[in-house]
Formats: sequence, structure tokens, C-alpha cells
Amino acid sequence: MGDSIKRLAVLGSTGSIGKQTLDVVRSLPDRFKITGLAAGNNIQLLNKQIEEFKPEYIYYCGADKTKYKNQRFINMEEMVSLSDVDIVVVATPGGSGLSPTLAAVKAGKKVALSNKESLVSAGKIIMEEAALNNATIIPVDSEHSAIWQCFEGESKKCARIILTASGGPFRGYLKSRLDEVTPEQALKHPSWKMGRKVTIDSATLLNKGLEVIEAHWLFGMPYENIRVIIHPQSIIHSMIEFPDGSIKAQLGYPDMRLPIQYALTYPERIDNQEIPRLDWNALVKLDFEQPDLDTFPCLRLAIEAGKEGGTAPVALCAADEVAVELFLSHRIKFNSIAKLIEKVLKQHRNIKQPTLEDIYSVGSWARVQALELATGVN
Amino acid sequence: MGDSIKRLAVLGSTGSIGKQTLDVVRSLPDRFKITGLAAGNNIQLLNKQIEEFKPEYIYYCGADKTKYKNQRFINMEEMVSLSDVDIVVVATPGGSGLSPTLAAVKAGKKVALSNKESLVSAGKIIMEEAALNNATIIPVDSEHSAIWQCFEGESKKCARIILTASGGPFRGYLKSRLDEVTPEQALKHPSWKMGRKVTIDSATLLNKGLEVIEAHWLFGMPYENIRVIIHPQSIIHSMIEFPDGSIKAQLGYPDMRLPIQYALTYPERIDNQEIPRLDWNALVKLDFEQPDLDTFPCLRLAIEAGKEGGTAPVALCAADEVAVELFLSHRIKFNSIAKLIEKVLKQHRNIKQPTLEDIYSVGSWARVQALELATGVN
Repeated sequence: MGDSIKRLAVLGSTGSIGKQTLDVVRSLPDRFKITGLAAGNNIQLLNKQIEEFKPEYIYYCGADKTKYKNQRFINMEEMVSLSDVDIVVVATPGGSGLSPTLAAVKAGKKVALSNKESLVSAGKIIMEEAALNNATIIPVDSEHSAIWQCFEGESKKCARIILTASGGPFRGYLKSRLDEVTPEQALKHPSWKMGRKVTIDSATLLNKGLEVIEAHWLFGMPYENIRVIIHPQSIIHSMIEFPDGSIKAQLGYPDMRLPIQYALTYPERIDNQEIPRLDWNALVKLDFEQPDLDTFPCLRLAIEAGKEGGTAPVALCAADEVAVELFLSHRIKFNSIAKLIEKVLKQHRNIKQPTLEDIYSVGSWARVQALELATGVN
Repeated sequence: MGDSIKRLAVLGSTGSIGKQTLDVVRSLPDRFKITGLAAGNNIQLLNKQIEEFKPEYIYYCGADKTKYKNQRFINMEEMVSLSDVDIVVVATPGGSGLSPTLAAVKAGKKVALSNKESLVSAGKIIMEEAALNNATIIPVDSEHSAIWQCFEGESKKCARIILTASGGPFRGYLKSRLDEVTPEQALKHPSWKMGRKVTIDSATLLNKGLEVIEAHWLFGMPYENIRVIIHPQSIIHSMIEFPDGSIKAQLGYPDMRLPIQYALTYPERIDNQEIPRLDWNALVKLDFEQPDLDTFPCLRLAIEAGKEGGTAPVALCAADEVAVELFLSHRIKFNSIAKLIEKVLKQHRNIKQPTLEDIYSVGSWARVQALELATGVN
């Protein structure tokens, strides 16, 4: 392949990661070509992207599908399997990432994976299919990208992962104070600019729990070898401790374009002046503290669901999707997100070796269940 | 080679790094065998080491060479070239490391290099001989070991090195206050336990300048791509910035046994419970600041000598050896170490492409010169 142009399918192109993926493509025009774009609900932006990048294939899950003459409308599973697609960027939100991710690994593609839920829900199935079809899943999450980078040239045997977490906007709050926080406050993340769902998940620390599960599957790492450390500046994106006690960390400003570009150009590293460099004259200190699992029970719930395995993480994700929506629409309090997830998990009957159908049906069940239980949690 | 026992020659076995090398060997008895020991001036300790490790070859630069029956006395250059030596640990101090290091690379050995002065004085010659004879030089210095580790699996092209420095015991001092500091104060390093010479060099920051020159040779790195950052906790041992802006760091407690073991077992990493693990519950913060080149001119002098090249670093090292000795024996003040080095460098006539003979003769000249100029500097 060498320096030849890589052809990309970007799923979720109008979301935060999708837009930043196109930023990277725009700044490295000799390296990438957009073959397919898929979006969910922002037709105006998608139209602009189509005009600029002229993809041959489009997927849009809204209504108006007849406007374009130069593009073919196909579904995401078809798009990621096309022979003229080299890299699939999966940046669709929530449960919608699972099916196209699976299709992409079955087609043996290089998958730049931003969607957490697919690995959290179906990590075993996806990783097995990836191995079977020689697909490579490169994480786009800053934490997992950091871990991936630190493992380059090293063995994973007996290593330990130290996932860093900013702690979110409510780090240091008492639980009682968290009952009063609004969606607007929760959406103000101190270091990362992200989509709404993941920003709320960062405020509850549920997001960090999902990342623990994702790390478990991506790196084949036992849960007891993964720990979470709060690091408010979000400069160290994660670390690995090797069996000899040596630790490697990956650092940089919180800017998703770096892990996105790394996933797209891997194993090469390309100079891109659009991405800001760490200013050593401005770097004064890096802080660390332990996560507060009593105040932020979502982290504990997620890790427990991960350890339980089977469909427990599916129920967790689905319940969280509903809970976050309810919180954002002011229908439940911040602390009730965890309460609602816990209630759903208590009623969940785990399927230990789930099929894809089991995963979808547990997801549906948990969403309905969460909605039903929501009235009782506040 | 696999899991077979590696045979070691340890030069400088009674010094700080030599003793810690033997600690590592002691804790991993299935991996290493001591074939040769060389020491300079501590016959009591050398005798104990001979009793414990039963090497076949001995070098001692003091008088009494006839005591042992089971060991052969040979010089260091012969010892490092023996066919039954796999790894040579060069932990001799100052200028005495050059000749055996050169002999070891000429013999195509794996060289665990702790002695800074050999690369600083004769980096070009040593690296060329290493390439010619397929020798591998693995750094034992914590900073260069960190850089080596961070480069694993990565390209050196367009990378930048960020060398961390503790700042020594006098970090934050005003220059006037430095005129009053005693050798006893200078020997109390805040984070590292090291030999006397390197501890004083750490207090003046000359040591960090030598490390810049060493990094230049070891990693083929242009001087403009190497910078020094003060990091008082000595937890981050150094960093690399890659062309995409991503930074990798290597972390651990300041304990030389880790880089020593890494150099001996490379590319493997071995669990060794004797080496303390970073306690994530205790890690609260990491601080960074810029080096103060006005108060600590030795750092500037060393980097300038490195950039000048030729025999300038030779004169620097030799003048510093004398200056440190004079300071330790209370004959010059702390600030006069830099003054003396600067005076010697001003009188030095650079040989741009020195032979080994040039290097030795400039070294001798600079030592004599430093002694002569010493009376005038206080």
C-alpha cells in the first residue's frame, strides 16, 4: 500500500468524531479519499460534506434519500464491505455501531473504532471475527489509542493498563450536591469537547467504565490488570505497566484529531501542523487522584458488568442510553442515572454466551425496562 | 540465545552501578553468570564479590594482584573481548570507560553502557565501530533507557527528545547562594542515589548536558531536537515527541536497577519483585519547570561543547573531572566548577575529526590546564 491514497468510509460523519475525521482528511489531502459517508440526523451538514468530499456512496437514516444524482445510497453494512474501501471509521453513536462494525471486521477491513458500545456489548464476537478475517481494529478513543501506542514494540504478556480519567466536570463534588446539577452543567466538560452522550457519560464516569470493558476486549487484558486513575489535566491519555515495573505513558493535549490521525495513518506517524503540540514552556504540573466510587457509582457498575460478562454490559449500555436521554430532558436527576442503571441490571437475567440476536434483544429489553423504571427513581 | 544463561563482564563492579548490576544478577540467578569483574579501588568489596560470584577473570587496577588462585588477571580490553562474555556492563567512572567500551563494540558485544564520558568524548568513533561490528549499545542511564524504551516499535525519523532533569539539590537557588554551598550539601541528591562524581555533576546540571551529548550519539538525534525539562520528582525519566505530536514517556521510581535490568534482559521484560513498583495510590503530582541556564551555566557549556563537536566535549569532560575533584576537596567553590570549565574550553583548540590519540591527548591537556587555571577561579 505504501504511500498510496487510502479510501475511507466514515460512519457518523456529522457527529463530533466524524467531523474531526474529515478535518484530518482535509489537512492531509494526498493521503485519503472519502469513498462513503453515513450520517444519522444532520442532513444540512451531510449535504455540505457531500459537496466538499464527493463520496461515491451515501447512507442517511432520515427520510429524503432521492436528492443526489452522483451518489449511491446503500446501507452501512454494504458500505463498509465495499472492495474500494480500505479503512472504515466507525463513529456512530450508541448501539447503532455494532452491526456495521461487525460487517467491517467480517470484510477484513482496517477499522478505526470510535464507537465504544459495539465492543462493550459484543466484544467477544467482534474480536473473534476480526481474528478470523484478519481485520485490524485500531482504537480512536484517546485512552485506547494511548494504550495501543504504548504497546507498540512491546509484549502484552503480564502487562497492566492504567486508564486515566479527567474526572469530569463534577470531580470533587459531594453526592448531595450532584442531586442539584443540571444537564447544562454536566455538558461542560473541563478538558474534552465531545458529543452530548459521551459528555454526560464522562460526568457520571460511566464512560470510564465502558473504556475498561473496551480495553479488556481490545487488548485481551484481564479486568484485575486494569485500573483507573483520575488525572484532571487530560494530558496523559493512559499508561501501561510492564512486568519489570517500567511504565509507558502517552501524552498530548486533549485533541481527538491526534488519535484519529494515528488510527488512519498507523503504523506511520505524519506531521500535521493543524494538531497543536504540547507547549513545554506552559506545562507546569500533572495531577493524579483516586476515583471516588461512592460518589460516582456508574464506574463501579460498569466494571462489575464487565466482570460479570455475557449480556450484562449490553443491559448496562442500553439502560445508560435511556437514562442519559431522560437526564438531558430534565426528567431524572443526575444521581438517578446510576440508580436507574442499577435497577435495570438487578432485573437483568444474564445470557453468558450471547448470540448477536441475544445482544439485540437484551438491548431492547433494557431500554424498555429503563423507561418503565424511570418514574420510580427520582 | 533464548532463555540460556547470559555471561557478563562487569567493569566498575564496586561502584554504584556495578553494585546494583550485581543486585540484579543476584535476584535473577537463572539468567546471568558473572564471567569477569573489574574494579578500581575497593579491594575489600571486590574480594567479597569474587567470593560470591566466582568469576573466571579479574581486573583490578590497584596493587595486590597475586592473591587469587582460581581467577585469571587480565586487562579490561581483553576481558570484554572474551568469547565467553555475552554482555559487557561498562560502569567505570570518567575517562576510564572509553578504551574498554571501544574494545567491547569492536568485539561485537552487547554493551550495557553506564559510563557517559566514553560516548561524550568519542561518540562518533564508538557508534561507527558499533555499526561496523554489529555491536548493540544499550544505555543504562535512566534517561537514555527511557528514550530507548519509548523508541521501541517506533521510527526515530523527525522525533524530538525531551530529557528530564531533577534539577539537583540546588534547584531554585540564586547564584549568590550557590557560592556558599558545601560538597556535603551538593552530595545530597533529592531523588537519586549515585556515585560522588555524577552527584556533583547533577548539582551543577553538567550531567544533564553530558546526557544531551550522549543522546545525540546514541539516537543519532540533532541537538536542536533535544530539550531539557526540569522534573523534580524524577518519576518521568524522559520523553519523545513523534512527528504527529504524540508524546511517549517512561515512568518509574528513581531506582537504577530497572534500567540496568532492562539493558541486561532486552528485549525481554522480566518480573523482579526486588524493584519497587510505582504506587498509584501515593502518586499525587508531577511538576515541570524550565532549566535556569544563568544559575547553572554548566548545562549551557555542555550543550555548546556538544554542538561544537570535535574535541570540545573531551575538554569539557576532562576539565569537569578536575573541577569536581577540586570542589569535593574544598579547593574551589561550587560556582567555580563552571568558571574553570569555561576557562579551559576557551583555551582549547578544537580538533574537528579527532583520532583516539587526539582524544586522549586533549583529555590530558585539559586536565593539566584545569589544574593550572584552578588557582585563579575562586
